[in-house]
Amino acid sequence: MKIVFIGAGRLATNMAFALQRAHHEVVGIMSRTEVSSRRLAEAVGCSWTTVIEDLRRDADIYIVAVSDNAVPTIVHLLGKIVPTALVVHTAGSLSMDVFKNSGLKHFGVFYPMQTFSKERRVDFHTVSCFVEACDVFSLKVLKSLAESLGSPVYELSSSDRRYLHLAAVIACNFSNHCYVMAADVLNRCGIPFKVLLPLIDETVLKIHGMSAEDAQTGPAARGDNLVLSAQKALLADQPDYKEIYTLMSENIQNTRKKRDRIDDKL
Amino acid sequence: MKIVFIGAGRLATNMAFALQRAHHEVVGIMSRTEVSSRRLAEAVGCSWTTVIEDLRRDADIYIVAVSDNAVPTIVHLLGKIVPTALVVHTAGSLSMDVFKNSGLKHFGVFYPMQTFSKERRVDFHTVSCFVEACDVFSLKVLKSLAESLGSPVYELSSSDRRYLHLAAVIACNFSNHCYVMAADVLNRCGIPFKVLLPLIDETVLKIHGMSAEDAQTGPAARGDNLVLSAQKALLADQPDYKEIYTLMSENIQNTRKKRDRIDDKL
Repeated sequence: MKIVFIGAGRLATNMAFALQRAHHEVVGIMSRTEVSSRRLAEAVGCSWTTVIEDLRRDADIYIVAVSDNAVPTIVHLLGKIVPTALVVHTAGSLSMDVFKNSGLKHFGVFYPMQTFSKERRVDFHTVSCFVEACDVFSLKVLKSLAESLGSPVYELSSSDRRYLHLAAVIACNFSNHCYVMAADVLNRCGIPFKVLLPLIDETVLKIHGMSAEDAQTGPAARGDNLVLSAQKALLADQPDYKEIYTLMSENIQNTRKKRDRIDDKL
Repeated sequence: MKIVFIGAGRLATNMAFALQRAHHEVVGIMSRTEVSSRRLAEAVGCSWTTVIEDLRRDADIYIVAVSDNAVPTIVHLLGKIVPTALVVHTAGSLSMDVFKNSGLKHFGVFYPMQTFSKERRVDFHTVSCFVEACDVFSLKVLKSLAESLGSPVYELSSSDRRYLHLAAVIACNFSNHCYVMAADVLNRCGIPFKVLLPLIDETVLKIHGMSAEDAQTGPAARGDNLVLSAQKALLADQPDYKEIYTLMSENIQNTRKKRDRIDDKL
């Protein structure tokens, strides 16, 4: 298929390379800035522009991979330029309603749930893709696009996708922020972050084989209030970390108590 | 070496098996309850007791792997029974001071930093062990014990170990609680947790090659306040999750701002 990207950021970059490897043709890139537009276009070997009206109009799919708040404007412009093409956005949080009154006939959502960085090429075989479309034809195209990338593909409504995206933020961004905080704590006594990697790896390996609730360990889960107080005291000069520590520990304890109550009833 | 365990929980179980595989002799298990004491002793093929005074007195090392608050009592009893043996505790949070006035001549700390479950055998090659001892002889013994397990071993003071343990709680228990919360959110719309695993795996793979700060993505990191508000609204009926969401997002944004200010100065 012939594909045009609107956007040249981390997602567009990773997806454009993956589509090329899957023998699709990336035929055009449009981005606000010349530098990012040109950089990605040169990497995949296609034309580029910073003006949406100059886009090629003969592509099969236009993939909108820009920041969420720019999506409405972009899809309305595309409605004027390529009204009969298939246009999709890639945002976890945005409803398909964003296409309403855009003038587009075929539209949908293609949400690859992953954390993308420019420095790291993501293997799409491991990226769950969630699709939604306005008609059966468009849905079929999006499913086959995901399958051609080797990605597991799931159909999901806009309403459920909001919860999926929320879960992704919590599981990815928040857990990563735990690593940021841990690195910061270690930094105080000059211990390198890498000593934590085996622990972090094992934490994730465990939840491949058991529920995260079953996998939980540590002072909060075992109700060791002495350790909890001592650790809070270590964070006395970092009130924001201390607040997060307190809240997370309480929530772990509440989860454990709820579970024990259910176990008691069984 | 001949080794006795006081405690028969997750850590003692995993460590006893690892020591056996490394051709050490586990010669005795003591635990409060007959059932756990007998279970581990039968698994490794040694004697067991629930009465500390009945322990064999000819072992080289006594490893205390009980809950933190039981450690002081245990080490004082051991001071009376095996005053010249090497006794170590395994608690990340407990200072070596716990051995003061115990009557023990050789003592120390052997802290294997890992999340242990009974259902899962941990490979000690990947477990960073942190050791501390009261004398050069004991320190040497503990280092060679860790090395015989194939574990990376580091010498660390009681004072610094407190920060290490705090970092471990944040990086392991808190990130795992993020998975618990994410599973809970997905459960509402019947999406299985396993769709998140590729995202969680990639989140961890990334920090093997870049700092967690550099790896951060998502609405908070890019300052997308519309998404942040919408996601908070989804948590309206779970005030505890909403509070954690708000606090974590603010902290991610503050980290990003601090970083940008430093970048601006450079």
